[in-house]
Amino acid sequence: MRRAIALAARGLGSTSPNPVVGCVVLDVNGRVVGEGWHRRAGGPHAEIHALREAGERARGGTAVVTLEPCNHTGRTGPCAQALVDAGIARVVHAVSDPNPSAAGGAATLRAAGIDTESGLLEAESARGNEAWLTAIRLGRPFVHWKYAATLDGRSAAADGTSRWITSGPARADVHRLRAESDAVLVGSGTLRADDPQLAVRGLDGDVTQPLRVVLDTHATVAPAARVLDDAAPTLIAVADDTDADHLKGRADVVRLPRAASGRGLDVPALLAALYERGVRSVLLEGGPTLAGAFVAADAVDKVTGYLAPALLGAGPAVLADAGITTIARALRLDVAATATLGPDLRVTAYPRRTEEN
Amino acid sequence: MRRAIALAARGLGSTSPNPVVGCVVLDVNGRVVGEGWHRRAGGPHAEIHALREAGERARGGTAVVTLEPCNHTGRTGPCAQALVDAGIARVVHAVSDPNPSAAGGAATLRAAGIDTESGLLEAESARGNEAWLTAIRLGRPFVHWKYAATLDGRSAAADGTSRWITSGPARADVHRLRAESDAVLVGSGTLRADDPQLAVRGLDGDVTQPLRVVLDTHATVAPAARVLDDAAPTLIAVADDTDADHLKGRADVVRLPRAASGRGLDVPALLAALYERGVRSVLLEGGPTLAGAFVAADAVDKVTGYLAPALLGAGPAVLADAGITTIARALRLDVAATATLGPDLRVTAYPRRTEEN
Repeated sequence: MRRAIALAARGLGSTSPNPVVGCVVLDVNGRVVGEGWHRRAGGPHAEIHALREAGERARGGTAVVTLEPCNHTGRTGPCAQALVDAGIARVVHAVSDPNPSAAGGAATLRAAGIDTESGLLEAESARGNEAWLTAIRLGRPFVHWKYAATLDGRSAAADGTSRWITSGPARADVHRLRAESDAVLVGSGTLRADDPQLAVRGLDGDVTQPLRVVLDTHATVAPAARVLDDAAPTLIAVADDTDADHLKGRADVVRLPRAASGRGLDVPALLAALYERGVRSVLLEGGPTLAGAFVAADAVDKVTGYLAPALLGAGPAVLADAGITTIARALRLDVAATATLGPDLRVTAYPRRTEEN
Repeated sequence: MRRAIALAARGLGSTSPNPVVGCVVLDVNGRVVGEGWHRRAGGPHAEIHALREAGERARGGTAVVTLEPCNHTGRTGPCAQALVDAGIARVVHAVSDPNPSAAGGAATLRAAGIDTESGLLEAESARGNEAWLTAIRLGRPFVHWKYAATLDGRSAAADGTSRWITSGPARADVHRLRAESDAVLVGSGTLRADDPQLAVRGLDGDVTQPLRVVLDTHATVAPAARVLDDAAPTLIAVADDTDADHLKGRADVVRLPRAASGRGLDVPALLAALYERGVRSVLLEGGPTLAGAFVAADAVDKVTGYLAPALLGAGPAVLADAGITTIARALRLDVAATATLGPDLRVTAYPRRTEEN
């Protein structure tokens, strides 16, 4: 199963709106005879790749899958039936499928006389699919907030300079996060300050570029902004009363209601629009204001902080007004991991939710 | 030597103005027959404790010492001579004594025909004596800045509440830092906001309470402030033109020039006054303004940050104006260690100095 989880991870960033799935097929003697992972929506599922590689050697064997084999006919046939047809004798899956339209695969397998087992390395496998599972549960994309700051929590110096707070290894790691996400999101403030390209660069292998999304209430993005180049698709979100005709032909535009606060756009409406476009995971790379709006909307599911061992004592804080005024209302997180990247620290944490929404 | 370093550490916080020193005496067969560490200034040195325990078994044996044995007669006799008198055949020390009045011990030993060796685990031993060695080198106390903050760098919420940003284990660790320091330093702002007692609590064994130092330019400390209780001695630093008669009998008072910036007191003058009182290590527990003044004065030698995995989005930053306005002038640190304390992270780092002053 650990191998299947590793295989699944290869699909991160390219399978949405589908989950990532890995599958290992063992022959009747327990030897690995096939491996596969789901590469992209519309393409074969992990089980099909693995069964193809195994061929006749799958007969009487075992399929180990990170997610319960699907039971529905979408752009591809149901995997449960394919496993039956291949003569598989036993199926072990980690996480049961929460998707009502695809669930029931295990029941189909059992009805066909196949020995089925579930729950093996379930937590580890679920973590590998955290974006998709969260998106299915909440009905909106999983939001991963990434920030870079000094130890005293500054995202830039007093004069606005921020290149580079963190080291090369930390910045390279951000490209990995982008590649694993369906969309990368910034606000117009970050666009004006940094003119980021937001594309994935410097990674080996086949990279699916994430959708670049700019929250640009007043449609002020400059025609020469790097985010409008052809390195990746781009979506500009503007207020529904904003004239955005000048963006025609440069990028997709989506019109959204303004936030109730009057500042920026409505976060839930944005996430709904992205979900509708098949986006299941968003890397939030915006500045302090945008991050504050997401925290205030309870729309941050994961936090990765790159902490540079440096002190500034002045300059913008990494997170601005999130509607929290007293310590008892602080958004508490659980640290999942810490790592060293060059001289910098990376902290990965998940908001502690008292009730799921 | 590792054992000697561990023994030395037991003296942290109680030996100033002397260094911490540990000593292990082995007999002629290499068996440990004596251990000692320097406990307090005026008391016997580590070597004397260890030689006493070893007695006649020291004859022909080896003494392993973290610091070069002293050569001078102060409140106690020279250790080099004591080692000669005990019939020690070999002395191994880690760090050579940088103190001109005490150095020369190794030469005395060699002159007496004793086999001497230096540099064993030198870096590790020097780290154990970092406060004293830095103080000797700079001619001012070693300053260790400790702060507690959320991941977004806030030391309190917008309404000023800060109890408790960090967890019990992190707060207990601060008491350990206090016990290892000669003095604990806060500003009058922290005093007004939190009314801290600043004494060491909750530690096992013999604890030497640090000197509590309050930077109180205008002598506004309240008579009922906890820092004036009898748990530990207290020093109030006021401006040299401030009337502090009302503090008589409540605490020691030192008069200092104001900072050139016009805000607060002159940091080098404060450190000089503390050094003169025998203080070799200071734990800086002040708020953002005081910490900023120390960073601006290039008077921070070590940083320990307790990072609570929480987000606030508003409230005071942990470090205020340190005179740094652009990213290229950020005070860069090297991370020496990270640790987990309950849910919190502890980051220990040292400022990277291009030139030593």
